[in-house]
Amino acid sequence: MSLKQLETWVEIPESSGFTIYNLPYGIYSVKKGKKQVGVAIGEQILSLAYLQASGLLESLKLPLGIFEKEYLNEFMSLGKPTWTALRSRVQGLLADGNDELKGHPEAFVMQSEATMHLPVKVGDYTDFYSSEEHATNVGIMFRGKENALMPNWKHIPVGYHGRSSSIVVSGAPFHRPCGQVMPNGADQPTYGPSKLLDIELETAFITGKSTSLGESITTDNAEEYIFGMVLFNDWSARDIQKWEYVPLGPFLGKSFASSISPWVVTMDALDPFRVAGPVQNPEVLPYLQFEGKKSYDIQLEVYLTPQDGSEQKLCASNHKYLYWNMVQQLAHQSVNGCNIQVGDLYGSGTISGKTPDSYGSLLELTWRGERPIQLNDGTERKFLQDYDTITIRGYCEKEGIRVGFGEVTTQVLPAR
Amino acid sequence: MSLKQLETWVEIPESSGFTIYNLPYGIYSVKKGKKQVGVAIGEQILSLAYLQASGLLESLKLPLGIFEKEYLNEFMSLGKPTWTALRSRVQGLLADGNDELKGHPEAFVMQSEATMHLPVKVGDYTDFYSSEEHATNVGIMFRGKENALMPNWKHIPVGYHGRSSSIVVSGAPFHRPCGQVMPNGADQPTYGPSKLLDIELETAFITGKSTSLGESITTDNAEEYIFGMVLFNDWSARDIQKWEYVPLGPFLGKSFASSISPWVVTMDALDPFRVAGPVQNPEVLPYLQFEGKKSYDIQLEVYLTPQDGSEQKLCASNHKYLYWNMVQQLAHQSVNGCNIQVGDLYGSGTISGKTPDSYGSLLELTWRGERPIQLNDGTERKFLQDYDTITIRGYCEKEGIRVGFGEVTTQVLPAR
Repeated sequence: MSLKQLETWVEIPESSGFTIYNLPYGIYSVKKGKKQVGVAIGEQILSLAYLQASGLLESLKLPLGIFEKEYLNEFMSLGKPTWTALRSRVQGLLADGNDELKGHPEAFVMQSEATMHLPVKVGDYTDFYSSEEHATNVGIMFRGKENALMPNWKHIPVGYHGRSSSIVVSGAPFHRPCGQVMPNGADQPTYGPSKLLDIELETAFITGKSTSLGESITTDNAEEYIFGMVLFNDWSARDIQKWEYVPLGPFLGKSFASSISPWVVTMDALDPFRVAGPVQNPEVLPYLQFEGKKSYDIQLEVYLTPQDGSEQKLCASNHKYLYWNMVQQLAHQSVNGCNIQVGDLYGSGTISGKTPDSYGSLLELTWRGERPIQLNDGTERKFLQDYDTITIRGYCEKEGIRVGFGEVTTQVLPAR
Repeated sequence: MSLKQLETWVEIPESSGFTIYNLPYGIYSVKKGKKQVGVAIGEQILSLAYLQASGLLESLKLPLGIFEKEYLNEFMSLGKPTWTALRSRVQGLLADGNDELKGHPEAFVMQSEATMHLPVKVGDYTDFYSSEEHATNVGIMFRGKENALMPNWKHIPVGYHGRSSSIVVSGAPFHRPCGQVMPNGADQPTYGPSKLLDIELETAFITGKSTSLGESITTDNAEEYIFGMVLFNDWSARDIQKWEYVPLGPFLGKSFASSISPWVVTMDALDPFRVAGPVQNPEVLPYLQFEGKKSYDIQLEVYLTPQDGSEQKLCASNHKYLYWNMVQQLAHQSVNGCNIQVGDLYGSGTISGKTPDSYGSLLELTWRGERPIQLNDGTERKFLQDYDTITIRGYCEKEGIRVGFGEVTTQVLPAR
């Protein structure tokens, strides 16, 4: 699919992913002002509340005050035709040759002057486990090569319920978690700060349409429910996780924090970057079969910045490596009648590629700490140290056109 | 602890658990009226919105309209001193010798004329696994007697995150879930309605106070956070659960519905029914140690009513059998800094006792279907059939005084 050429009269730095092709939504505030909905364009934020108040969105017949909210949820609940219509109108206002917005400099604020907030009020949060390479790597480490993938893995987009309350936005630091672990060789558990603090490179999608209890979403209509995507860092305390997770799954090893990027990139913006996903063999059950390209070519990178050190790339992966795609995940999530709500968040699971430089966690990158990563400042990492900052960036690029997610960047503070 | 003798001028049927010692909170509506907060007393509901509008709660200085809400969350967020003060005032108004409310028959509505709604907007929902007897029974069935309890079980109140969106109130039926299962002996999974639909007899507590991310609750201050309790039926599709749950825990086998009773019984009302819990051996880590009586003597019963049949008791258990208590659960949940929110729900896990007639699930009662239950109508049950209705009832009783939970009753509809 070729992209229609669009130019904008707003200045966009060459490296920016917030182009006129993107127009992601976020919640921001300026100084002590109220939270409101904005669209990122270049280094600026366009205030949708301002556009509405100025009558520039009149043709869309949106509810009064819909952009003066603390979260995107109410806007999302207006449905996909409205999402698309608004994006199209904003794109028109920013396009070369359109003068309607040019006399309104107060419609814009510099991103550097704004504070970004959690974009959605998350209802339920599911984390899938949809990268074959990640599941295989973890399986080899814990169960050996012969039993790496569990028997259900290629039949089910395996996932679990995560903790919604501790999802935080880029920029919010968190304290290294304390908890109960069973040290190697010990016969009694101990309590203390996690020693094996890890990242998980993920993306997440957000639903903008609800279903009733008992209703199922099909792979055919799943896209009506998906509003957009964010970058997602699913922080993991491997030592806590290891001791607690049998038989009911991850719990406190994950629930201390999960970080998301502030700008929600819409599926409309991602549409040109659709690609075919991995071939699924064995064939999946009919409710998981789908037609068309349901994977996305999103380049993902993870960087580590030690305290007083310089940023260093840890790995580069791609969303298209995922074995299970989002429409399959959503069809599976709801196949039992589980109701979907506006603002639910669905994590991909760690996205690892085939080569060791594409592994999406330190657990895999250092192979359980057996191959430490050498940093530029002369130190090494098996897992994270206090004051380390992790930044995930993501973007799509095609025919010279860029649609970026920005970043999710988070510093680890010492245990309390 | 002896109970202070209290009489009320409101007529209370002898069998009612909604005595003047109880005063649970719920959300109700009458005909097409708005949802509001009420207190159950005998067969009636006392409208707190009416009391406030009439000036009868003036001394409490409550926010205007606090009882004209769709959920209890805003009231709960006022904190424990307010919960206690309001309960005390309502108890006073209903007590013999107090005439303030006697000229206000419009403050009451019959429960039979009202519709009950979900009492809280649930943020996160955790389900613990805190009955030693249940964990042991399930362990014996799946792993044999030698490995019944996992090594972590007596050190950690094991739990997992559940799905909040599908929590429904008593009276709301649900459809038998469909999903993916691996039939015994098969090498390919199949799709269809669950054949092994089960109940789980649980209680749940609701938090009414929040913490910030990074903060931990101790066993000493945990009670400040707990607003009250409800009966909880954690519906489980054993065949779906069995195929999906390794390694990330229960997911679609549980997320199709979980049912709660409509009246939230406060911890103040339950206070006289405190008892010592089971001795914990081995000794738990200091963050899980506690002082005082933290278990509650709550009698629990489960009944099955087949379509066109009569109600029949399946089992009787007691909340005091739980190995891990609520303050330990909450201290564990937050020990890693995971933030607690007003309206979170924490399930106990299936509550089984030592004797077979006290097992809290059909899985245990029929021992995986090996010992079917004979019903009065001549049929038998290994697991639930379509149109079966399950009712859980719960109450405390001491010195002739009763504090009841009412019931959670739910009918199973056929798969869609």
